Amino acid sequence: MDLKTSIEERFKGLPPELLGMQLTEVTADKVVATLQVRAELCTTGRILHGGAIMAFADTLGAVGTMVNLPQGAGTATIESKTNFVGGAAAGTTITGEATPVHKGRTTQVWQTRVSGADGRLVALVTQTQIVLPPRG
Amino acid sequence: MDLKTSIEERFKGLPPELLGMQLTEVTADKVVATLQVRAELCTTGRILHGGAIMAFADTLGAVGTMVNLPQGAGTATIESKTNFVGGAAAGTTITGEATPVHKGRTTQVWQTRVSGADGRLVALVTQTQIVLPPRG
Amino acid sequence: MDLKTSIEERFKGLPPELLGMQLTEVTADKVVATLQVRAELCTTGRILHGGAIMAFADTLGAVGTMVNLPQGAGTATIESKTNFVGGAAAGTTITGEATPVHKGRTTQVWQTRVSGADGRLVALVTQTQIVLPPRG
Amino acid sequence: MDLKTSIEERFKGLPPELLGMQLTEVTADKVVATLQVRAELCTTGRILHGGAIMAFADTLGAVGTMVNLPQGAGTATIESKTNFVGGAAAGTTITGEATPVHKGRTTQVWQTRVSGADGRLVALVTQTQIVLPPRG
Repeated sequence: MDLKTSIEERFKGLPPELLGMQLTEVTADKVVATLQVRAELCTTGRILHGGAIMAFADTLGAVGTMVNLPQGAGTATIESKTNFVGGAAAGTTITGEATPVHKGRTTQVWQTRVSGADGRLVALVTQTQIVLPPRG
Repeated sequence: MDLKTSIEERFKGLPPELLGMQLTEVTADKVVATLQVRAELCTTGRILHGGAIMAFADTLGAVGTMVNLPQGAGTATIESKTNFVGGAAAGTTITGEATPVHKGRTTQVWQTRVSGADGRLVALVTQTQIVLPPRG
Repeated sequence: MDLKTSIEERFKGLPPELLGMQLTEVTADKVVATLQVRAELCTTGRILHGGAIMAFADTLGAVGTMVNLPQGAGTATIESKTNFVGGAAAGTTITGEATPVHKGRTTQVWQTRVSGADGRLVALVTQTQIVLPPRG
Repeated sequence: MDLKTSIEERFKGLPPELLGMQLTEVTADKVVATLQVRAELCTTGRILHGGAIMAFADTLGAVGTMVNLPQGAGTATIESKTNFVGGAAAGTTITGEATPVHKGRTTQVWQTRVSGADGRLVALVTQTQIVLPPRG
């Protein structure tokens, strides 16, 4: 089972699956996923809810960190910052691409660009993941 | 129909309902809601997913802004920042309390404290909402 | 020599002194300082430069963390977020009050409210400090 | 007088000059500057103070916005977020490169990468500038 499939297995029944996000690329320096903008993920204005965007991106940054963890270590998001710059309408598909800003021993920082179908930027998310050492 | 009920009506079939959040107080200076930490909202570690926390808080800050908008105006979140400081375990209930940092003509800034059942802080969310003037 | 004086000694010739900030209270749960808005700290519009506000607040959050560190430990700011909500005019004095959001073993989070002479909020700063264990 | 020189003129006696920052490139899509890490801009640990880094970057993002403003409009930073990922030692020179994330009618978002002499990332700053319409 490859890395992408094994991560999808772990996400069964959890928020990434509820969102309906599809991982399309998982490497140590890039994590990509797509998400269909279903009506139930939208605001009253029928554009993708900011919360759904942040949940989508948070997952990408966490996966990127996981791929880079030392054996046995864990991770948690300690802070996350999003700039919302454009809407994603119901019925379209967004793409998130997470790349590392910093891979440290105690923290990793990942940034995710969320783009619409036309390639226009929807949101930019920067998050810090703490590296939790293996339990002794 | 009171304000709280009318907001809940508008949220039918949208992320706030999917999350299962319950508004308990909606005034011009405070918006409070609770959320049951269901397993499907959790990470693989069975604590509430950061994305769910951000979606929950985002809704509170947006509701607070809406209550303070001039007649006919709209709002959108333009940026949001979360510090995660504690976990909320599956089966517990969290409470979010949003209060205004700034109520301006062009932007509003709201801060939401998300606490666990024992009152301990889970996350602190600060978000900026843009005020969209009524369409002419 | 009390805590406040000993910190001021350490800041001699460094940015807090260059800014001209005056610590007025240093405890484990609150750090307060004032700053005179000199013309050279302003923007072209003669209001306090955002960079000066962030430098001022950063120092307060770092001092608050230092007061709470275990013996021999150090600290560094790993991230900082500011919302600017009002201007502080040249010739006035601002006050910054930092309080802890979270005092953990690996990180501390502090929030600083910067207010103008009339008590109105100028900026809200939230920062994460990493706790660096004593060198062995 | 070119754009760079005219900006430097406006900064005389203000924080950018106090910091000692030198603009090296100013276009509609990139603003670059360098800064010598003088001892007085450092922390007690003789690395560049976070406040100096944020003031440096804030200026770059504001200049980038100014270059893109409609005739007669002004701008102010409404929020700024920094991740600090590495130190810059006294005696070295840092470079900041600001590029636009979003150029909207009501807000612009700029991101500044601050790097050390060896090209390693020191900090990543993302800031939102509000566009203030010309006064009638």
